[in-house]
Amino acid sequence: MTESFWQKFKNSFYAYSDLNLMLDISHMTISENFFSQMAPQMEKIYAQIDLLEKGAIANPDENRRVGHYWLRNPELAPDMEIAQAIQENIENIKVFTQQIHSGKIRPENGGIFKNILLIGVGGSCLGPQFVSEALGTNKDQMVLYFIDNTDPDGMDQIFTRLEPELDSTLCIVISKSGGTLETRNGMLEAKNRYHIKSLDFSKHAVSITQVGSKLYQTSQSERWLRSFPMWDWVGGRTSVLSAVGLVGLALQGIDIDSLLAGARLCDEKTRGVITSQNPASLLALMWYKATEGKGGKQMVMLPYKDRLVLFSKYLQQLIMESLGKEKDLEGRIVHQGLAVFGNKGSTDQHSYVQQLLEGSDNFFVTFIEVLRDRVQLSPILADNSTSGDYLQASLLGTRAALTMKGRESITITISDVTPFSIGMLISLFERAVSIYALLVNVNAYHQPAVEMGKTCTGEAITLKNCVLAFLRAHRNQKFTVEELVEQLDCPNTEELIFKLLVHLRSNPDHSVKLKKHENIFDDQYYVE
Amino acid sequence: MTESFWQKFKNSFYAYSDLNLMLDISHMTISENFFSQMAPQMEKIYAQIDLLEKGAIANPDENRRVGHYWLRNPELAPDMEIAQAIQENIENIKVFTQQIHSGKIRPENGGIFKNILLIGVGGSCLGPQFVSEALGTNKDQMVLYFIDNTDPDGMDQIFTRLEPELDSTLCIVISKSGGTLETRNGMLEAKNRYHIKSLDFSKHAVSITQVGSKLYQTSQSERWLRSFPMWDWVGGRTSVLSAVGLVGLALQGIDIDSLLAGARLCDEKTRGVITSQNPASLLALMWYKATEGKGGKQMVMLPYKDRLVLFSKYLQQLIMESLGKEKDLEGRIVHQGLAVFGNKGSTDQHSYVQQLLEGSDNFFVTFIEVLRDRVQLSPILADNSTSGDYLQASLLGTRAALTMKGRESITITISDVTPFSIGMLISLFERAVSIYALLVNVNAYHQPAVEMGKTCTGEAITLKNCVLAFLRAHRNQKFTVEELVEQLDCPNTEELIFKLLVHLRSNPDHSVKLKKHENIFDDQYYVE
Repeated sequence: MTESFWQKFKNSFYAYSDLNLMLDISHMTISENFFSQMAPQMEKIYAQIDLLEKGAIANPDENRRVGHYWLRNPELAPDMEIAQAIQENIENIKVFTQQIHSGKIRPENGGIFKNILLIGVGGSCLGPQFVSEALGTNKDQMVLYFIDNTDPDGMDQIFTRLEPELDSTLCIVISKSGGTLETRNGMLEAKNRYHIKSLDFSKHAVSITQVGSKLYQTSQSERWLRSFPMWDWVGGRTSVLSAVGLVGLALQGIDIDSLLAGARLCDEKTRGVITSQNPASLLALMWYKATEGKGGKQMVMLPYKDRLVLFSKYLQQLIMESLGKEKDLEGRIVHQGLAVFGNKGSTDQHSYVQQLLEGSDNFFVTFIEVLRDRVQLSPILADNSTSGDYLQASLLGTRAALTMKGRESITITISDVTPFSIGMLISLFERAVSIYALLVNVNAYHQPAVEMGKTCTGEAITLKNCVLAFLRAHRNQKFTVEELVEQLDCPNTEELIFKLLVHLRSNPDHSVKLKKHENIFDDQYYVE
Repeated sequence: MTESFWQKFKNSFYAYSDLNLMLDISHMTISENFFSQMAPQMEKIYAQIDLLEKGAIANPDENRRVGHYWLRNPELAPDMEIAQAIQENIENIKVFTQQIHSGKIRPENGGIFKNILLIGVGGSCLGPQFVSEALGTNKDQMVLYFIDNTDPDGMDQIFTRLEPELDSTLCIVISKSGGTLETRNGMLEAKNRYHIKSLDFSKHAVSITQVGSKLYQTSQSERWLRSFPMWDWVGGRTSVLSAVGLVGLALQGIDIDSLLAGARLCDEKTRGVITSQNPASLLALMWYKATEGKGGKQMVMLPYKDRLVLFSKYLQQLIMESLGKEKDLEGRIVHQGLAVFGNKGSTDQHSYVQQLLEGSDNFFVTFIEVLRDRVQLSPILADNSTSGDYLQASLLGTRAALTMKGRESITITISDVTPFSIGMLISLFERAVSIYALLVNVNAYHQPAVEMGKTCTGEAITLKNCVLAFLRAHRNQKFTVEELVEQLDCPNTEELIFKLLVHLRSNPDHSVKLKKHENIFDDQYYVE
């Protein structure tokens, strides 16, 4: 560090006191004229964002508006109907929470609801998981559990834990489309568990989904406790401040008004058209600079605070699903994206930071520093220092080591982990993603490739059913993979049928048996 | 898929029935002569591994032997003394476990030990965390908790949970060197908590460390319950099958003999010099092929099984700390490495898989498939399918979609998640790392850059103490950052002192106060 580094630092350090946020980009290598070079493009972007917030179609492929900003400031919604729906929904969530907490809505056999089982995946789970863990305390009013996969064993683990208290467990099923397979499976398995315990699932269930969806219809026809709406204009990965997050978090006991206030204020600040006063613009520009606008570097997230450990998982979806696109808005092949990974510091210093310091320079780090160490006083442990002093020193030490090795980093500092600051961080990164997407000219609001995986998944299920039907129609007859492909007349499916059969014969559910041979490809399969 | 894909698949699919392992590299693009091209190099590597296992110095920089293979087959140890020490240690762990479980060793106020608080970081924590979660059931004999950081708030969360049962909580402190700061801090905070509850920490504490280390001395002089040894020839990131992992896991109720047996058998198989019969060689060669031996692609780990979710975190350390090196064995600058991230499938399909399918082709996926779905029978949920059928179909669907998009993947299939298969996976990846390190000619067993971060951390602590001493010597006098730098005569430390002061004034522990000014760099700090 030379004397001029202090000058550089002062010029590259931004304090946003009303947000309780500081942003330090002094450990990035930025050419002197970078900001002025980017200024004309940023000006255009600010105009685009203005239109977007006023309800322009930001997601042209799906002809959708993008309104997650309205969630925390309904006045901005393009029409009264939407504004009212948002406000009413927040009120409804608060009333429902009060009814559950007070015991006005009770479990079937009396008592009070203690646990929440949240069933959802992707955007319907990562946000609530992140915020719940970030803000949880031992004084929470209810405990949240999550099923976010279609893994039978994973569900068994959760149900085994919840079984003694299943009647006092409220089940929240979340799917925007109402058709997500993992979520539907989780719901059906849950239903089964309540049924086994002679409990009426509908007296424990809440749905969060678009009005009219399959899930909505089920929850209506089975008379579930409540259904909260999702809206067309909120994408899954930006839905944590809609009912998706708010219902579970309010029930947990988290102050959702502060959560919304943090996001609202940050939305406002990041609407600003003066780049240096807009932390989201600065973040997006640093991503652009680091990756040369091509996603050429990975973003390593290192929050130095245990309760923020899920932030990188949350950002993996927000950033990678938004930016990872084959085509730009003009349809040109660009293969854009920005890979995100990380857990927490200082823990990760004892893991992969060796590679960051010495391996390929194909990343930049985003440090998150939290100023407040803990609620009460800390003991002085050694060397006149607290655990928190060491935690900060570790961040500063690793950052300095990275800088010495020529590796870039951004440091975000927040005062404390509160509902306000978490709302602020959610808004900050949502906006940074929007701005970066405009910088690299991609649609941040669709996910065209996800459909492809779903189609292939459906094909595997269909093929499995064909194989099963055939084996059942020919009981006790033994077939090799190749014979089945021929019999079923479905050429080029050998690999898939082989994989399906190996799984089928490993589980008792469909009664598929194996006659082993020396070569695994000669193995024969049958149903008794 | 053309007809010839089935032929390719059969040639690229390897079943190792005694390991309950299948390895499928058919979704990698491999030129026809790749294996024959690599054969001479592999031959040399097999000879090197042979020497290494016989006790040659595999870590020349630190002049250390690398003996984690001996842990599961003491007969291979280079001398009787080591072999005996390994065997005795396993016996001691079993006896100690029996004494704890049976109540022969009891908490201070009677009863029985129920919980384990494991304090460690990096290699002293990631392994036990991964295995504990992978193999935990509701029938475990003890419940493991972890402190793996020096975050005061993170520790508070754990202690708040453990407080009512602190007397029946056994505290295992793990540090090979015995001097790791995070671990020492965790231990001191724990001591403090036991003390507040009028409990004698030493009657609840076990150390795992090298004989003679600082931690060893503390545990001896304070007469802790027991100390288990670590050895010079076991590196932190390959220590999970030493006392580091075995003590906590045995206490949890996990069958450590099976864990060791799985690793032993896989060690044996991966000692084989016929590449096609050696799954670790095939893995290492695929990494080499995918990254062109330069770490140019990231490894995305996707286990389709909730209980394996920590595997990618475990592998981040094992792989990135081993391979992420600036210099090769001849001292040439190479910036080697292999970045690893991932969580679990199908969950991650609803997150960043969009980017994998459409973004930059800068990764390859490693799928982990588990054949057995769950312990009991599954309900048929819909479309004649179980949750497990959907889980497998999701894997097959995503893999097919990736292949269609030209993205490569490896699929590892195991029968079930058991102590044997977890031991096997640990051995498999340890060996693959060893082989890959030889392929790219780096020392896989040191971590030279970690020291650098530690030095910088120490400097931050020292500087903080200088600042504090100065402010205390000048009570009630107010200083700006620049004034302090001048007074302390430590040029070019402005940024560091600024960061330290902002943290100090945000916490009450050192009584540092702030006089705010309009510009944050004019703020004045003082001690009353």
